Amino acid sequence: MSNIRIELTANPKQKPQGPLHFGRYFTDHMFLMNYDKGEGWHDARIVPYGPFPLDPAAMCLHYGQEVFEGMKAYLTPDGTIQLFRPDENFKRLNCSNERICIPQVDEELCLEGLKKLIEIDKDWMPTEKETSLYIRPFIIATDAHLGVSPGEHYLFAVIVSPVAAYYETGLDPVKIYVEKSYTRAVKGGTGMAKTGGNYAASLIAQVEAYEEGFSQALWLDGVEKKYVEEVGTMNVFFVVDDEVITPALNGSILSGITRKSSIDILKSWGVKVTERRIAIDEIVEFHKQGRLKEMFGTGTAAVISPVGMLRYDGHDMPIGDGTTGALTQKLYDALTGIQWGTAEDTFGWTVPCCKL
Amino acid sequence: MSNIRIELTANPKQKPQGPLHFGRYFTDHMFLMNYDKGEGWHDARIVPYGPFPLDPAAMCLHYGQEVFEGMKAYLTPDGTIQLFRPDENFKRLNCSNERICIPQVDEELCLEGLKKLIEIDKDWMPTEKETSLYIRPFIIATDAHLGVSPGEHYLFAVIVSPVAAYYETGLDPVKIYVEKSYTRAVKGGTGMAKTGGNYAASLIAQVEAYEEGFSQALWLDGVEKKYVEEVGTMNVFFVVDDEVITPALNGSILSGITRKSSIDILKSWGVKVTERRIAIDEIVEFHKQGRLKEMFGTGTAAVISPVGMLRYDGHDMPIGDGTTGALTQKLYDALTGIQWGTAEDTFGWTVPCCKL
Repeated sequence: MSNIRIELTANPKQKPQGPLHFGRYFTDHMFLMNYDKGEGWHDARIVPYGPFPLDPAAMCLHYGQEVFEGMKAYLTPDGTIQLFRPDENFKRLNCSNERICIPQVDEELCLEGLKKLIEIDKDWMPTEKETSLYIRPFIIATDAHLGVSPGEHYLFAVIVSPVAAYYETGLDPVKIYVEKSYTRAVKGGTGMAKTGGNYAASLIAQVEAYEEGFSQALWLDGVEKKYVEEVGTMNVFFVVDDEVITPALNGSILSGITRKSSIDILKSWGVKVTERRIAIDEIVEFHKQGRLKEMFGTGTAAVISPVGMLRYDGHDMPIGDGTTGALTQKLYDALTGIQWGTAEDTFGWTVPCCKL
Repeated sequence: MSNIRIELTANPKQKPQGPLHFGRYFTDHMFLMNYDKGEGWHDARIVPYGPFPLDPAAMCLHYGQEVFEGMKAYLTPDGTIQLFRPDENFKRLNCSNERICIPQVDEELCLEGLKKLIEIDKDWMPTEKETSLYIRPFIIATDAHLGVSPGEHYLFAVIVSPVAAYYETGLDPVKIYVEKSYTRAVKGGTGMAKTGGNYAASLIAQVEAYEEGFSQALWLDGVEKKYVEEVGTMNVFFVVDDEVITPALNGSILSGITRKSSIDILKSWGVKVTERRIAIDEIVEFHKQGRLKEMFGTGTAAVISPVGMLRYDGHDMPIGDGTTGALTQKLYDALTGIQWGTAEDTFGWTVPCCKL
């Protein structure tokens, strides 16, 4: 049994009133650990949420040596707070760590600390339909050193944010445009890692997408600008005839946990799912032929995000009739059913945390 | 005349004793400004150097929305502290800002604040041969918000670090190997911007280079893995016969100020300098033919870094006789002569700051 020190706040914050805008409110505590070269990770602790006093020369502020994860805790009808595949998140965190030269963390200790944190802050769990606690584990290099080399000092943290239902009035198809100028990631780069630089690189395309009335950009590969990679901060799926296709993980695409779970659920229904390289021209062709039935993104925040319209090269392609497709809706219902505990978890994906 | 508030420290730090390891010591003060949406940049101030209390959800710690610059202040024989082309650095900072969706800064105000800061902390100026003050302007997004979108709150900072001569016993040729697995940057990405993510992506190759006994990795383009881009954190030049060639700026290469200055100096000597796409295979061929006379990197930290050996695909290519080439040495002497004020600045590149 590990030794996680706990220091409770003497000044609990007021809970947010009104709409729970995504990632704006944080609970009373956070889970922290430090790494120092020679000593390894140590001083696992749950302490009151509060600012990090970072030296202005802290390496994470200059050289982006930082990784993160995103997952959620859900309240089930019987009052259990449960996590969805948290082991996968901490496994992926260690994959990101490897690419960004951050020392590996003890995945079991991370999960234990997370569970304790959720239990301590459980009265922050919102209870309205489809709300959840968004969980953000992350690691930053804290060395006060301007040399470009891996840090020798790191801070691991988990912070928790109560969030509203992503879609307040049911699934709402989004408009996506295919980004041709900017690149998010490339083979040999950091696309498969959840690291700050990927998101910094993506901001400009997102701003341009908004300005054009679209909600996200679809990224093509960085080499040929020809193959579909991701959409915004989600993985992407196409329903073509009766087959579901999604880009194969190629080193520049994030290995999404909702992606992986969606594939497993679809396959369990006997749906043919193919992970392969997908040229954007193929998608255009499928659309012309009337074979592109549905399209959706997958990610922790929205779970499943139906796409109602895709713009490529100035050409608008409405997907289906512009409403959420039947398979997309069924997949959303199945995944969220498992997450919120209203459907049986036949996959063994959920991990109970505590009772509310 | 702008209004920069000044708050002097009541507790000056002890100056470092012994060797000035790069980027480890910082002066007594820092120059800060804040940006808030609707208000713009404001509250320009010089205050005691000290930690930033950052919210754990600060966007720079998650999404890498951060940019920086690097330049130096030099002590001339007549006791003047001078800067080298600082206007170019603040211009480039704004280029980086544009790519990373950070609001533009007032370049003149930045320079004014920097000069004041140097004047206030001038007794930190080391006086040994070829020492300098390394100057690090940077900007971070500080919003406590986990949504992936450009920040609405930023902190601009300039910190200053006394640094030793880069080469303690004269120019020392380094060993470089050509990186084939990892990618630093790609067209449409952030390679031309000085942003954290580029450096985070590069760490793994640098670690592997060290492990193999090399000091830096030479990056090839991210698309074809064929064309030379940069070496470590420097731009790269080759002397082939009597011509100097360097990769043309293509959007994924940093537009180095030492690179630009080197080109201007070489041209002023009547040396033919060509900026073009350079295949690594060409370099191998030039080496085989005995035409690759010299090779060097350019950057603020080392100014000019001669390359003594290049490894590509397991094949070692000694450059020249392994010592610093004549043109490399001449360029180093010319550039550092201007910087430390021992040679006439016929280009008008230096900007006096204050008297020591």
